[in-house]
Formats: sequence, C-alpha cells, structure tokens
Amino acid sequence: MWVITATWCMALDGVRKAAEMLKDGADGADALETLITDVESNPGFTSVGYGGLPDRDGNVRLDAGFMDGTTLNTGAVMSISGFASPFRIARSLSSSELNNVLTGSGAEAYAAEHGFEQKDMRTELSISRWKQAVQQTHQAYRGHDTVGALVLDEAGNIYAGTSTSGLFMKLPGRVGDSPLAGSGFYADSLVGAAAATGLGEDLMKGCISYETVRLMKEGHSAQEACELAVKALDSRLKKARGKAGDLSVIAVSKNGDCGAFSNISEFSFVTASDTKDPCVYLVKENGNISADTAWIRAYMERHHQF
Amino acid sequence: MWVITATWCMALDGVRKAAEMLKDGADGADALETLITDVESNPGFTSVGYGGLPDRDGNVRLDAGFMDGTTLNTGAVMSISGFASPFRIARSLSSSELNNVLTGSGAEAYAAEHGFEQKDMRTELSISRWKQAVQQTHQAYRGHDTVGALVLDEAGNIYAGTSTSGLFMKLPGRVGDSPLAGSGFYADSLVGAAAATGLGEDLMKGCISYETVRLMKEGHSAQEACELAVKALDSRLKKARGKAGDLSVIAVSKNGDCGAFSNISEFSFVTASDTKDPCVYLVKENGNISADTAWIRAYMERHHQF
Repeated sequence: MWVITATWCMALDGVRKAAEMLKDGADGADALETLITDVESNPGFTSVGYGGLPDRDGNVRLDAGFMDGTTLNTGAVMSISGFASPFRIARSLSSSELNNVLTGSGAEAYAAEHGFEQKDMRTELSISRWKQAVQQTHQAYRGHDTVGALVLDEAGNIYAGTSTSGLFMKLPGRVGDSPLAGSGFYADSLVGAAAATGLGEDLMKGCISYETVRLMKEGHSAQEACELAVKALDSRLKKARGKAGDLSVIAVSKNGDCGAFSNISEFSFVTASDTKDPCVYLVKENGNISADTAWIRAYMERHHQF
Repeated sequence: MWVITATWCMALDGVRKAAEMLKDGADGADALETLITDVESNPGFTSVGYGGLPDRDGNVRLDAGFMDGTTLNTGAVMSISGFASPFRIARSLSSSELNNVLTGSGAEAYAAEHGFEQKDMRTELSISRWKQAVQQTHQAYRGHDTVGALVLDEAGNIYAGTSTSGLFMKLPGRVGDSPLAGSGFYADSLVGAAAATGLGEDLMKGCISYETVRLMKEGHSAQEACELAVKALDSRLKKARGKAGDLSVIAVSKNGDCGAFSNISEFSFVTASDTKDPCVYLVKENGNISADTAWIRAYMERHHQF
C-alpha cells in the first residue's frame, strides 16, 4: 500500500510523477521530493519556488520543511534566496545530527557549500507584480498557497514536506508556518502525517499539523482529525481575536486513509494511492467532492497567466 | 493571584525584579520582559543575549519568542545580530497583524527601523571562547541554556517568552526550538503556558510546549503535564533514534500551579508567586527540591568566570 496527499490542485502533476515512482517501489522521501520540486520549478504557481511572490524589497525568499516520520529527522530552510529547490536543501539538512534548521544567509552558505543548484527565482511576472504592488499605497497581502505533501510508502514510512514563497509583499525575513515543525508539517510513522496551508501567522498559533497527527493517534480518522483540528483552531482564534485567517490542513494515517479540511470555501487537494489514480478534490462543508475537468482547467488557467 | 516560573537558576534576579513589579500590579507581559531582558543583559550567562555563545563564524546570533495567551499574539526573531534585546523585538512583532516572525537581516532591518537598542553582543569572553574552539579539530557543540519564562498576572493573563544564543559553534543561521511557537514556548490563558530548554533539534520533534499545555487542558496539573510530555518525547525519540537529547520543560496553569521536568540530572528553575518568595528548585526523579544557598552560589560562580 502507498498513499500520496498534497495541498492545492497545483500539486496534480507532481502527484502523478510521484505516483509513478511509488508504483515502481520508490522510497517515499524520493517520491515526495519529486512531487514538491515539480511545483517549485513551475513558474505558473506563483506561491511556491521559481516565480514565487516577492517580498517588500522585490526578492523571492523561500521557506521549506521536511520530516521523516520514522527517524523523526526534521529539516527546514527559512527565507532562502537564489536556490532552485528549497525543499531539497531542507531534506538534506534533516539528516545532519545538528543544525537541522537554517535561515537566510546561513542557509544560503550551506546550500552553496553543498552544491545545491543556484537560480534566480524571480521571473518577469514576479518582478512586474512587485513593481505594480509598490506603486499601490495600500499593500495587499495575499497569496499563501503552500505546497504541502504527505507520502506513505510501501515500507510503511511516512514523510511530510512543504515549500512556499510565503505572503506576497511580506517584510524581508518573514516566516510563516510552512518551515516550522508541528505548524506547517508533522510526521510520525507510528500514526500519520499532516501539512498545512493558509495564514501562517494563525496556523502557528495552534501547531495545527502536530495537533492533527495527535488526533489520529487518539483514534480519529485522517478526515476527522483534519476537521477537528481546523474547527478547534478557527473557534479558538475567533474567541480570542474575533477573527481567524485561512486555515487548511491535509492528513494521511498509517492505515492509508486521507483527509483534508479548511475554513475557506474552495480548498483543493490531490490524492493518489496504489488503488486510486491521482484525483483532485474540493473540500466542501458536507464532504469532499472530486473536481471536474472544467474546474481543474479553470484553476490551471488562473495560475498560468504569465 | 500571580505566578512566575522560569528556566535555570540564571533567571533568579530577573524573577525577583518581575515579582516586585507584579506585587505592584504590573502587566504580566511587562514583568516577563523585565525578567528576560535581565538575563539577556547579563554577560555572565553565556547562553543568552549579551556575551552569548558565538556561531561557527564568531558571530553572536540570537533567537527569541513571545506569546500572549489571551490574544494568542505570537512574535519571534531568529538569528538576529547586533541588538541588545531580541526578546523586546519579538514582543513588538507579536502585535503586528502580519509578519510576526522575522529572521536574520530582515529582523535586523525591522529592529533598526523601530529604534531598538543596537549593541555588539560579543564580549571578550565570547570571542576568546570562539577562538579557542576554532583551534580544536573536533567542534564540541554545547550550551543550550535558553531562558524561558511564564507569567500569570492578577488579571488572569498568561504570557510565555524565550531568549537564547542557541548552540555554541552552530552553523550560521541555525535555529532551534526557542523561537518556534509550540516547540520553544506556548501560552493559552484559558489553560496555561509552557516553555522548553535543551536540544532544540529534538524538542521541536515533539512540539513539547504545545503538548504540555494540551495535557493541562486535558486536566493534568502543570507538574503532571511536564512529566508526561518529557517522558513521552524522550521515549519516542529513543524508540525512533536510539537516543534523546536534553529535554526540559516548565509550565504554569491558569489555576496558578507550576511544574517542571527534565530528562537530565540537574535542571534548575525558579518560581515566585503572590504567596511565595522567589525560590530556585532542582528537578529530581522523586520530586523537585529547593536548591540551597551553596548550590546557588556554586551555579552563579560557574557562570561568572569572565
């Protein structure tokens, strides 16, 4: 048995590639890397990797995280610039004994020292969007579609990974939940894994990925765990602050069941398994539904305006 | 009723100052800031703030976190250099609507823009220790005594804060658990708060501060929650990896009870409340004991070798 789940329709091609690998008995972490780097390298998806959303200074600074649920190895990079795959660097860091999480220029020095591919991650579109935004008096923060992905492989190992450019027009050095173990991602092969996307500043207030995995440990299905975790954090935030940011979470349990839930109206995710071809789903209040071809085409067109 | 708990004997003077403030009805976050900046400004404590342990390149790069358990406002700085109080900057960031967590040069730009006190955080001792270490062929990583502190004030608001220089000889940009919400610190005024110290790379694998608060929410006392959280993570790490790094956690519940637990032999912490003068305790397997004057004197002498 193997299972893949990933956030947002943008992960579809990557899920397809990862599914092919798992069919051939690939290691789950390698399949996860293929999935996430597929999204990172696509300039059409402007919230992750190449062509990502610039910060206030016009730089594309990226965050990524990785967790191996069997060894509990955890790695992350934060606010890294000039490298093609933040996720690959995060995964590489996870196998170090110490120094698993590196930020900014330190992360860049490590990546250069270890020969990771260097790349200017700005595209013409990302630069023109930034130029447009700086001319506006009111800065609109938006765009926080992190790719988060979970893989359970044939060997029973579970992996979680994330990659994002974070908020558009963020302050330089800003970090959301994505590279934070427990908030952006969490994996424990004895239980399952989860990953989050949405407003990082709010997701980290509830350690939502850790909480989702913990709920599965208590006996809840992946779907129940996602629903309970999102509803509890949404409700706690509204009680404390009168409002809650976008909160979306996906999960896979060690039994192979998948889940996803969100407090926004159109959160999409992709799943595939040894018994099911890659499929895009939409989270709806009365249960997740599969997205039809028209919906997927419209999504892809929206994200390929460059 | 008001209560303070803080990690390590080094927090004693800061706890005394914070206790005086709370006696006079001060706001809990202000008392917490006084406590943590007291430790940050003392060059004798070489794992926090001024005179902190340098990274591999000889720079003192600091991390700090803050959480307001009532509003859930969360702020953190990571890998910041050249400012007197990383904690003050983290607290300031927590009240922004977005961009609550800043790293490296971005954090420094924010701090400069907002007029935070600039200071070369290296001391003669920290520089000479670094020079000694670079001459050794085998780099000994050590020194991870984060100051973590929790305050419950008369108004019933609970706050958590941390500040650290992280591992001695860390890679530039390395970040541990201290500035990570849920791992280094967590606060929810409806339940309680927790903070951690030890090996950040391992503490973040269990979101230990979030988990400790969650256990209190389930009905456990602060002491029970600390014991359960440390033992569970220690055991999970040993199962997955054959070993566990140093894990220590402190907690305060909304009812005012305090707790502390550790998997190391001599973890000290300090508590004070409206009914009890500041006192240093040692965590022991058969229950925490108060430290006598000789122990405290020896601790302070060990930390004032400059």
